Amino acid sequence: MKAAVFEGPGPITWRDVPDPGIKDPGDAIVRVDVVTICGTDLHILKGDVPEVAPGRVLGHEAVGTVVETGRDVRSVRPGDRVLISCISACGRCRFCREGRYGQCAGGGGWVLGHTIDGTQAEYVRVPFADLSVHPLPNAVDSFDAVLLADIFPTSYEVGVLNGGVRPADTVVVVGAGPIGLAAIATARLYSPGRIIAVDLAESRLAAARTLGADATVTVSEGPEQLVEDLTNGLGADVAIEAVGVPETFEMCTRMVRPGGRVANIGVHGKPAVLHLEDLWIRDVTITTGLVDTSSTPMLLRMMAAGRLPAAELVTHRFELGQMEEAYDVFGRAADTGALKVTLGGPQHTALQAPAPPVAG
Amino acid sequence: MKAAVFEGPGPITWRDVPDPGIKDPGDAIVRVDVVTICGTDLHILKGDVPEVAPGRVLGHEAVGTVVETGRDVRSVRPGDRVLISCISACGRCRFCREGRYGQCAGGGGWVLGHTIDGTQAEYVRVPFADLSVHPLPNAVDSFDAVLLADIFPTSYEVGVLNGGVRPADTVVVVGAGPIGLAAIATARLYSPGRIIAVDLAESRLAAARTLGADATVTVSEGPEQLVEDLTNGLGADVAIEAVGVPETFEMCTRMVRPGGRVANIGVHGKPAVLHLEDLWIRDVTITTGLVDTSSTPMLLRMMAAGRLPAAELVTHRFELGQMEEAYDVFGRAADTGALKVTLGGPQHTALQAPAPPVAG
Repeated sequence: MKAAVFEGPGPITWRDVPDPGIKDPGDAIVRVDVVTICGTDLHILKGDVPEVAPGRVLGHEAVGTVVETGRDVRSVRPGDRVLISCISACGRCRFCREGRYGQCAGGGGWVLGHTIDGTQAEYVRVPFADLSVHPLPNAVDSFDAVLLADIFPTSYEVGVLNGGVRPADTVVVVGAGPIGLAAIATARLYSPGRIIAVDLAESRLAAARTLGADATVTVSEGPEQLVEDLTNGLGADVAIEAVGVPETFEMCTRMVRPGGRVANIGVHGKPAVLHLEDLWIRDVTITTGLVDTSSTPMLLRMMAAGRLPAAELVTHRFELGQMEEAYDVFGRAADTGALKVTLGGPQHTALQAPAPPVAG
Repeated sequence: MKAAVFEGPGPITWRDVPDPGIKDPGDAIVRVDVVTICGTDLHILKGDVPEVAPGRVLGHEAVGTVVETGRDVRSVRPGDRVLISCISACGRCRFCREGRYGQCAGGGGWVLGHTIDGTQAEYVRVPFADLSVHPLPNAVDSFDAVLLADIFPTSYEVGVLNGGVRPADTVVVVGAGPIGLAAIATARLYSPGRIIAVDLAESRLAAARTLGADATVTVSEGPEQLVEDLTNGLGADVAIEAVGVPETFEMCTRMVRPGGRVANIGVHGKPAVLHLEDLWIRDVTITTGLVDTSSTPMLLRMMAAGRLPAAELVTHRFELGQMEEAYDVFGRAADTGALKVTLGGPQHTALQAPAPPVAG
């Protein structure tokens, strides 16, 4: 089959690799119908994620069709259309028993496209299939659903839930790429008072306004002053870091009010400076986190009910075989205006009746 | 009257200053019976707390006797023996209404010995007396109670509560000075699995064992390896920083398990390096905080019931007029073995019947 292979720091290649097969009774083999590229994949290409070895098939987000299952798999069968979660979960370890699937100590966690071959391929082996894929309801389009593999649960769990967003809060989201935009969309579920989006690019801030930001500001316009002005000098209740560089993390720690929370979502390759000489007295909470995808079933219900924006996040669509071009467009987002790019044939766009109201 | 005056970086002097008087209807004037010196006072002498102006009377911990009250004060009257909290609280601002008295935006917070004259004096003006002093039950000795002005609520709220200590947790306390020791004593209220104390000095670790540490280790013995060995490589559930230097803070971030919490209590004068390139994926929560003293009434009940160690934390006792000597002994703790030093006449040691059982 063809797959996107990490050849060491630098561009991927779309080339022939052996087909995957069942290795464990809990595995499923899934034909990839729709796949996307994550900012984390770009970090891998830069060498920021050293545990990814050359030769690895990348990708940890996809929607596909089950073609084969190991003898222990109970929740899906061949022919099922499924979301492949970026997190695989053994379901048995200490962390899985607490719903912290991202920290799975039983061989799961973030493994696809990281420590085992991933989803940017024609087929993928998904370990622990019972807890690692989600059958999709008919009401959800595959091109929308693929955004639930990583960015929506990541933004929601690591940004909004860790940030403890509450009604009336002032929430600053630094970085209006796909993750920041999904954080804006899911922060709205908690009725904040205002959401302020910060980015370098006006084009991304336009998307932020579409997704629900109440105020937007470019870095050169002085986001810290704006937050101060809008909060009578107090600072934001919650600052969500969705970039992954020291400067934006440090900006978040300066913008948050006493008693506030900084929720880091960004994937970092370098340390930041933590100004404890200012922060020790300010009752600040800083969180980091890998997504658990424990919220994926809820987000899927919201999407089926038409209550999560998805199409607004996708700027470019490609066929699966255009992987190298898609990486190029996504990697040059500052020039191309790319937010999320998806790959897959038009036959995977479902034509559905209107979605029913959301149900518990 | 005599008072301990900050003359700029360097030693304090015990010298004549004007007597304090009522300035606001919410004030109380308190005769200081027992007072202590805080590690934060030493930070002030080093110049780490630049908002303390030369000429300031230091001290934010005391037990005393009310001699005069402003016309709005309702909860104490002249003659009452009271604990003076390190935190004053207006009771009306947004933060006070949430119990975050330490962040009081109405003129309180940590003001005594910081932005107004403090308790290391013969008399002190306490603003917002209704919420800033606590009448003392007869069962509590003044020399014990003075430890409830700051170190016990600080260690409990900023260390144990922010750290989210739970039954069976492995808790590491870095720094076995008075704050670290009080953190050990109050962490035990939550039945952790084990408490590991880390310090430079074996003498402090002996005190840590007395107060309930299950394992102790000097920095040169390799605390990180010990934590790793005791937790099967996982790391501590909670790491409490009770020193206030970058090295110990960074040690805490390395010792904590995925999903764990670092609770910073230390007063820092310099930034630390936050290794986000390691931590972004580890679900770590880092908290900072100034004490609110919202727990003081509960701690007072525990002390009255004999369920908080106090005498174990005090190594040296002086008369009030020996302030300069007391600072010298406390400031050279590495040589003198000083933990907490108290100042006050023996007439303030109550001789009481055994304490009754604790009651809600």
